[in-house]
Amino acid sequence: MKGQPDVKDLTMDTGVQQLITKARAEGIETAFDRAAKMIQCGFGSQGICCRLCLEGPCRISPNGKGPQAGVCGANADTIAARNFYNHVIQGTASHVEHAREIAHALIETAEGHAPYSIKDTEKLKNIAKGLGIDIDNKDVNELVKEVTALALEDFQKQHGTLNWLKLKAHKKSYQTWENLGLLPENAHAEIAKSIARNVMGADADPANLLMGTVTLGLVDGFAGLHMSTDLQDIMFGSPRAVKAQYRLGVIKKDKVNISVNGHIPLLAEKVVEWAGKLENEAQKVGAAGINVVGVCCSGNELLMRRGVSVATNYASQEMPIITGALEAMVVDIQCIMPGLHQVADCYHTELITTLPYSKISGATHIEFTTEKADQAAKEIVMRAVNNFTKRNPAKINIPEEVTEAYAGFSVEQIIEALKAVNAEDPLKPLVDAIAEGKIMGAVALVGCTNPRRQQDKYNVELVMELIKNNVLVVATGCSAHSLAKFGLMSPEGLKYCGEGLQEVLTVIGKANNLPALPPALHMGSCVDNSRIADLLSALASYLDVGIKDLPAAGSCPETHHPKALAIGTYFLANGVDVHVGVNPQVTGSKMITSVLTASKEQFPFTTDALFGGKLIYEEDSKKAAEKILERLKMKRRIMGLNS
Amino acid sequence: MKGQPDVKDLTMDTGVQQLITKARAEGIETAFDRAAKMIQCGFGSQGICCRLCLEGPCRISPNGKGPQAGVCGANADTIAARNFYNHVIQGTASHVEHAREIAHALIETAEGHAPYSIKDTEKLKNIAKGLGIDIDNKDVNELVKEVTALALEDFQKQHGTLNWLKLKAHKKSYQTWENLGLLPENAHAEIAKSIARNVMGADADPANLLMGTVTLGLVDGFAGLHMSTDLQDIMFGSPRAVKAQYRLGVIKKDKVNISVNGHIPLLAEKVVEWAGKLENEAQKVGAAGINVVGVCCSGNELLMRRGVSVATNYASQEMPIITGALEAMVVDIQCIMPGLHQVADCYHTELITTLPYSKISGATHIEFTTEKADQAAKEIVMRAVNNFTKRNPAKINIPEEVTEAYAGFSVEQIIEALKAVNAEDPLKPLVDAIAEGKIMGAVALVGCTNPRRQQDKYNVELVMELIKNNVLVVATGCSAHSLAKFGLMSPEGLKYCGEGLQEVLTVIGKANNLPALPPALHMGSCVDNSRIADLLSALASYLDVGIKDLPAAGSCPETHHPKALAIGTYFLANGVDVHVGVNPQVTGSKMITSVLTASKEQFPFTTDALFGGKLIYEEDSKKAAEKILERLKMKRRIMGLNS
Repeated sequence: MKGQPDVKDLTMDTGVQQLITKARAEGIETAFDRAAKMIQCGFGSQGICCRLCLEGPCRISPNGKGPQAGVCGANADTIAARNFYNHVIQGTASHVEHAREIAHALIETAEGHAPYSIKDTEKLKNIAKGLGIDIDNKDVNELVKEVTALALEDFQKQHGTLNWLKLKAHKKSYQTWENLGLLPENAHAEIAKSIARNVMGADADPANLLMGTVTLGLVDGFAGLHMSTDLQDIMFGSPRAVKAQYRLGVIKKDKVNISVNGHIPLLAEKVVEWAGKLENEAQKVGAAGINVVGVCCSGNELLMRRGVSVATNYASQEMPIITGALEAMVVDIQCIMPGLHQVADCYHTELITTLPYSKISGATHIEFTTEKADQAAKEIVMRAVNNFTKRNPAKINIPEEVTEAYAGFSVEQIIEALKAVNAEDPLKPLVDAIAEGKIMGAVALVGCTNPRRQQDKYNVELVMELIKNNVLVVATGCSAHSLAKFGLMSPEGLKYCGEGLQEVLTVIGKANNLPALPPALHMGSCVDNSRIADLLSALASYLDVGIKDLPAAGSCPETHHPKALAIGTYFLANGVDVHVGVNPQVTGSKMITSVLTASKEQFPFTTDALFGGKLIYEEDSKKAAEKILERLKMKRRIMGLNS
Repeated sequence: MKGQPDVKDLTMDTGVQQLITKARAEGIETAFDRAAKMIQCGFGSQGICCRLCLEGPCRISPNGKGPQAGVCGANADTIAARNFYNHVIQGTASHVEHAREIAHALIETAEGHAPYSIKDTEKLKNIAKGLGIDIDNKDVNELVKEVTALALEDFQKQHGTLNWLKLKAHKKSYQTWENLGLLPENAHAEIAKSIARNVMGADADPANLLMGTVTLGLVDGFAGLHMSTDLQDIMFGSPRAVKAQYRLGVIKKDKVNISVNGHIPLLAEKVVEWAGKLENEAQKVGAAGINVVGVCCSGNELLMRRGVSVATNYASQEMPIITGALEAMVVDIQCIMPGLHQVADCYHTELITTLPYSKISGATHIEFTTEKADQAAKEIVMRAVNNFTKRNPAKINIPEEVTEAYAGFSVEQIIEALKAVNAEDPLKPLVDAIAEGKIMGAVALVGCTNPRRQQDKYNVELVMELIKNNVLVVATGCSAHSLAKFGLMSPEGLKYCGEGLQEVLTVIGKANNLPALPPALHMGSCVDNSRIADLLSALASYLDVGIKDLPAAGSCPETHHPKALAIGTYFLANGVDVHVGVNPQVTGSKMITSVLTASKEQFPFTTDALFGGKLIYEEDSKKAAEKILERLKMKRRIMGLNS
């Protein structure tokens, strides 16, 4: 079509390129093409459009020639602070509802009302002990009930702070938050309070609004990320290293293909289980079997614990359908494109929504409840099997490429791998390597892909630059998919690493019967950023410093979801520098931009001064890598390490 | 100034006109002038701009010539539904946090930690009984503790539905909501769930989103409005008829003037108390005393219970400062213009914020806690007293007009007034009047004023038209101020009423030693819309019909705050027609507009079909009155009454 951008400019993934081309030929519009033609509003992009009440919309003139305040008098600083806060509220609510869903499923499991089991009793005991529960002489179900009761308290208590915060926060971070009066009360109350303070006519002090945003970042971290991961590990097992396949080539022409897309593993786990049980049914319709593939974070959850292959990440989630060989796309919640329905309509693929509060008009809806998880999963798989015969062979076009990648690097797994080097003192080899400069620092590559940005390019480019400079990389979410697709989660990626990092990865790898560890360690889904925080906390405690003192940073070069901003706020509050490659929609306010992005030497009131970490907004990945490296080196210098 | 609109076009209130003129002469910009020069974005105004994630902002082309979906594929229906839902979330969170604040203050009072008392033990007992509490042999503090424990449960319970909903819902409405699966769980959980379902990539089904919006409307109604009113009445007393003064003339040149502006009466009550105690101090600085005046809903709360004068309503809240005779403007939360600070900066007025989560940069902040309520209130009043000597006489210009108005019409007061006509069966005279057609129906005038609309004009014009047609009017919020200012809350307004209504108001008035009841009965603040719901519920039960069957409607001609949309949703869910005079920012979606505003004969899936009430969006007040009257007549016909 005329005027459409070259597919190579939309994504680095050749399989995705192939399918965008196919879609265009078939007259199907994908998110990439919608993004290319969307003209973006400058007010909204810069966070200076206010739509909080019916006096507006009000827009602040960024060049000073038009209105400098909305009708109520809110200026650019207040408006940008509120818009940023709203993003963090949205991200936080998503994560805490995820955690609460798992807590309820665990309770039902312990009470015998749900067809799940407790897979990691070791972790259950550790969490219980950490929460101050006496674990002696208690059976698993009793412990689960006591742990989940404390989890639910984090949505109920009217005084004090989150149990999960007390369980997981690093003591130095805790001290900072307590001193600043930022400790959250309960997750739901903080969300409601945040909205109530962020409406028209309530809190209008941008600095105060940012402090509220940080409190919500803590809610996101503890009652969202950590609680989700901990309870999921208890229920489904803590991940161990697995080898799996990536890219659209994991969709198999001769099999019934089902993709799971979303976030909460309750459904995805059951789909995998029933796909196994119903292999015979697939054969009856002429298929070689049933092939479940992952998309987005449901993909990560299944990958980490079951080694299930991953088809693709967020921006290209329409592509599995466009292969013409997908029998069902099963979704739960978050990052599900409503546009999937229009694409599925052009194929035999059945789009199946499963949660009562996350539907798409026109999609098949099969209600999933934990109690009836088996019935729902069975019905979903059987529908996919029956759809196999409805394929249109003329429309089938599956990209061939597949890459291999390792995943499953939970903190437990990382410690185990390090124990193969030093059984007594497993963190020592890592800490020594950092001290000696073989490892310059650690960066977590997290978050999204975004159809506005050339897919995978910014994630991969940044990491290439970092590992060349001996930065150890861990990754989660859709950005982990980007790295896996391009060989950075396999020992083969070693060649891109600097000498020091190569040596360390090889030593640890060989001690674990691998040629080397991959340059980027896959630590899981977006909620599993908790694992990264746990690792940093363990290292800080080992060194008797704060998390803020470590030469560590987070980066989200292809940000799309506000969840990334909530996660970023949590890490900023811990003093970890956070890079985003997409405008976080605050640039219309110099003040908010400065508070978030300036260093403490540049501006009196900054997250850097308060917490020790700052936001780096840089679209260019090479420049971003430079800026991150500069901060890592600064932190090394302060710790007395050579930089 | 050139190009500025005539002040007469901005407000009907001559006092406000006078002060806008003064402000202009002094180079001060007010909300009216900011509104006049703000160019409104057509996408935002129509609800078809999506800023939920960093793929956007995405804007849907309303003429079909540009994008019909955002990058993710969300279309105009989904985007408009989400924007509307977000407004209702914001309104609901505001009200439930108000209720929770009062619940905590009551607990502290019962525990002896806060300097408040329990003023209405009768209401306490009634509420306790309604909640199923055994009231025998319990002292007041015990009862308060049990009632507030059940109030807090409405923010904590993980199963079942709100205690306050079970206490207050009309049984037929309850049945409808239960059948549709709309009963809320707990207020905070529903808010968090609502956000989690309303983010990028979650619920995309516009009909489903609207059902979620209705559930949140129920949260607003029961855990927001009703709970706030009930607990406030217990704490501060249920209002009884009072006579008071309105308009900017209530500011007294010779007194220390303090205006209270906001919503939660905990602070405002204490300011009045300490103003009384510190009269001597005022005399020491040469003032004739201390004069507390109300603005917005804090004004309504003090008016209803203490007969405190009301200076002005929302849109003109800057005006008390511009008189040059206001020593302090004390604010808590909601509907507080951030622009107050710029105005106060030009005068000796001290703008004082009081809540930690509702500040304005540059304002004086005196932290208010229930425990230290006395200290805070005393300090605030003393600051005002000390500011009296800082006045600039050249800047003083107080409009002279004052009007008299009756207020304090709680349901308890209305029943008492009716008992003077029929002691045995107090509702009978009212019901008979409706049946005979002397009263055509009842309309609640609620909500706001909005600087975008000529202030008071639309509120007054609508009510004039309705009472002429024998509609009984009750009023709350800032719209009640509009009516009071123009004589509609005094027996003198009788002359504007139709014959039948005149007769009824005169009979009831005379039985209560008044020439007549005023044509509009002031029922309180915005949370006191609960009182209107209670009255409708009592009438429906008396007649053994549903609330939806009554010839009743609500109207908010000058809507500005999203709280009005939350309240409107609650009344729609009860089957009450709701009129708004400002675009509720959904018109970019034909579907959402139809669901909300079409009658059940016009569109298959409407709030009218599901609940029996529909939204009427009409900017012209005369046309709005016609539309409301048409629906009242239709409901009368269905009930078998002449229309």
